[in-house]
Amino acid sequence: MAEEDEASRRRYSLDRILAISDGVFAFAVTLLVLDLFVPVLSSGATSVDLGQALSKESLSFVSYLLSFFIAGVWWNAHNRNFGFLRDADSKLRWLNLLFLLWIALLPFFTKILNQYANLQLAVVLYAFDQAGAGFFMTLSWWYSSRNHRLVDRTLEDRTIRYITLRNAVAPLSFIVSMGLSFFGALVAFISWFAMVPALMLIHRLERTTESKQTDTQTNEQTDRQE
Amino acid sequence: MAEEDEASRRRYSLDRILAISDGVFAFAVTLLVLDLFVPVLSSGATSVDLGQALSKESLSFVSYLLSFFIAGVWWNAHNRNFGFLRDADSKLRWLNLLFLLWIALLPFFTKILNQYANLQLAVVLYAFDQAGAGFFMTLSWWYSSRNHRLVDRTLEDRTIRYITLRNAVAPLSFIVSMGLSFFGALVAFISWFAMVPALMLIHRLERTTESKQTDTQTNEQTDRQE
Amino acid sequence: MAEEDEASRRRYSLDRILAISDGVFAFAVTLLVLDLFVPVLSSGATSVDLGQALSKESLSFVSYLLSFFIAGVWWNAHNRNFGFLRDADSKLRWLNLLFLLWIALLPFFTKILNQYANLQLAVVLYAFDQAGAGFFMTLSWWYSSRNHRLVDRTLEDRTIRYITLRNAVAPLSFIVSMGLSFFGALVAFISWFAMVPALMLIHRLERTTESKQTDTQTNEQTDRQE
Amino acid sequence: MAEEDEASRRRYSLDRILAISDGVFAFAVTLLVLDLFVPVLSSGATSVDLGQALSKESLSFVSYLLSFFIAGVWWNAHNRNFGFLRDADSKLRWLNLLFLLWIALLPFFTKILNQYANLQLAVVLYAFDQAGAGFFMTLSWWYSSRNHRLVDRTLEDRTIRYITLRNAVAPLSFIVSMGLSFFGALVAFISWFAMVPALMLIHRLERTTESKQTDTQTNEQTDRQE
Repeated sequence: MAEEDEASRRRYSLDRILAISDGVFAFAVTLLVLDLFVPVLSSGATSVDLGQALSKESLSFVSYLLSFFIAGVWWNAHNRNFGFLRDADSKLRWLNLLFLLWIALLPFFTKILNQYANLQLAVVLYAFDQAGAGFFMTLSWWYSSRNHRLVDRTLEDRTIRYITLRNAVAPLSFIVSMGLSFFGALVAFISWFAMVPALMLIHRLERTTESKQTDTQTNEQTDRQE
Repeated sequence: MAEEDEASRRRYSLDRILAISDGVFAFAVTLLVLDLFVPVLSSGATSVDLGQALSKESLSFVSYLLSFFIAGVWWNAHNRNFGFLRDADSKLRWLNLLFLLWIALLPFFTKILNQYANLQLAVVLYAFDQAGAGFFMTLSWWYSSRNHRLVDRTLEDRTIRYITLRNAVAPLSFIVSMGLSFFGALVAFISWFAMVPALMLIHRLERTTESKQTDTQTNEQTDRQE
Repeated sequence: MAEEDEASRRRYSLDRILAISDGVFAFAVTLLVLDLFVPVLSSGATSVDLGQALSKESLSFVSYLLSFFIAGVWWNAHNRNFGFLRDADSKLRWLNLLFLLWIALLPFFTKILNQYANLQLAVVLYAFDQAGAGFFMTLSWWYSSRNHRLVDRTLEDRTIRYITLRNAVAPLSFIVSMGLSFFGALVAFISWFAMVPALMLIHRLERTTESKQTDTQTNEQTDRQE
Repeated sequence: MAEEDEASRRRYSLDRILAISDGVFAFAVTLLVLDLFVPVLSSGATSVDLGQALSKESLSFVSYLLSFFIAGVWWNAHNRNFGFLRDADSKLRWLNLLFLLWIALLPFFTKILNQYANLQLAVVLYAFDQAGAGFFMTLSWWYSSRNHRLVDRTLEDRTIRYITLRNAVAPLSFIVSMGLSFFGALVAFISWFAMVPALMLIHRLERTTESKQTDTQTNEQTDRQE
């Protein structure tokens, strides 16, 4: 009975964090649609006129797609991290809210980036928002996994370190890119894509280490969660 | 214990996909309400004045109803497909997000269609959005059901094929209608309704095949899920 | 195993309907906040100036409160009805979507009513929206409870009839009020409040019938669900 | 079987309240993003121009952060209170809706406060909104916990009193601050921060009382829920 109550309390704590998170994500991925305007044309307008009017809005479409894609990346990362959690507490609730703060700001900074892609400040602000989201996501994971505070006791330390490393890549890369932006907005922009090989390298290393060991449980765990 | 953990992980993966999906759908079906404006009338206005002012907005009302109805169709299809799933992974998460991308764009393209219903481009764009949603929904199902990757092992191949076929009807029809739009917007518009008999025919064929067999389990499965 | 699968399928069907419903309700009760504008005052403005500027917006506040309250009434009724359901199917999904359609329109019609409370048409439109919501809610319940289609087999026919009657009061009253509006907007407005004694009378009658019987199970059922 | 049904009914009642609450909170914490506007600059604009244009909007950013933070405080308090509940009824649904009413209004009153921080009325209105939210949250808890109406029977009276006291601090402080505002907006503003030591004192007192007793169950309960 008492054990059941405890399980139900844990379930409740996690469920509510997930509910508000998915709500904010759903809102964030659809919010930019409000910036797409139906062109107002004269009554004799043709398909060509409509096409031209819409193409002037192409920036908004790119902005929408980019914002949707990036929110998707964060949502997937959030999915992965929280899939390991078995409990939640007040501190995690706040760390997660602080992560969501930057997610909710995504549409705004994406719009600035699209409109002023050639300006250093636009790139820096965008990287700042990403670094902010990444920082609080990494902190959430670090807090939850440290001493197996909120994760399963059977979760191996190696898996925890691997996830921590994966989490840290994004905020670190974006902070570095803020410095690189002094060499031009394009340099910073390109540096963001350096994260992909970095993450692949970490994944490869993790694999190599694991395959040397008899116990492949971690391997399976990581695979499934991803 | 381990089995319970596995069941809980599967539950978690699916629940989060459903949470963000239902959030986006709830947002999409209500978003168009923001386009309905309360008419501003002079102080001595009568019911007739109000009626006339509102009738000028009739386009927005039709747009709202159409968008609501179509989102409802996709939500039902999403319900049916995901009802068969027992697990989710990162790839499905992305395929589903790409499906949601087109759902979130629905209100925008519906408005264009209503405003420029006589222009070929408006019809093509609308069909393009529908085809996009249908393509990623079909792909989601194909990915999940192939080799029973994320569906129940006991789900019959015949049922899987039937659902695949049903899923494919919408994107294929909308792509064809984009070609037909060259014969006039109306031709394309009419072709959309050809989906209804097509779906009924598939349903009929599925029934006939089944009734020839002793095992009627599939029949029941399909019935319940719909 | 098969029984467990069936229970899980039912859970899934209901959960998704509730998810999209609560999403639409959450959106509807907060949407009107967007219509409250912060007054723009000159730099030397006092508290009195701010107060006067806000009091000019009092209409929007009343509109917000009214809309919130009515959405709350419908949400409670939705809660009560769906608390009896044990399963859902495609038809119920559509009936519920058609109910949500009128809920999503609530903020719009409330604004019209507040702005043109003296015009018959505003009152008629508002009553029309309420009647629409009530009609599809009653239909949802009628469809679900008929022959115990989607409700618990042990649910007594008397309870079903009582809930049906309760559901029918709102749409019928609003339709009648549309006719009464020809005697003035105020008459229609007052007639809405006639629902309160009507619902109390039905509740009283139900009680009296029950107390004459030995079996008080229904009584308990109804009490708990409310 | 009957016991299982009863547990499922309780689960259902609570789940729906939580669903609409988390929906409103997710909406409230992201709504202010709509007030952040991307500055429109001439084509030859530099990073300095963008920076200056954005700094003019700093008010909106502060407003956004403040609103996000306060909504987070209420969400956490809501989390804590509802974590103790085991059931819900129609009255709690309404008390919770009345609480959400003030949460949905938060963005509006935060904007007024930021824009007219020097005016007494802005401070009073803001405190009024907070007092409203706090009042209905306290009432919700009082109603639920009285005679263990909706909480676990094993929950100790001391814990209930402690939670009641914690809940009452916010509304009482905000009402007092409305009086203090006559001595200047700043006095009221500072008085809000007096809540922090008040809450810490209550927490300390609760601890002291507990440690004198053998049974430390309450202590654990309270710890976990926070």
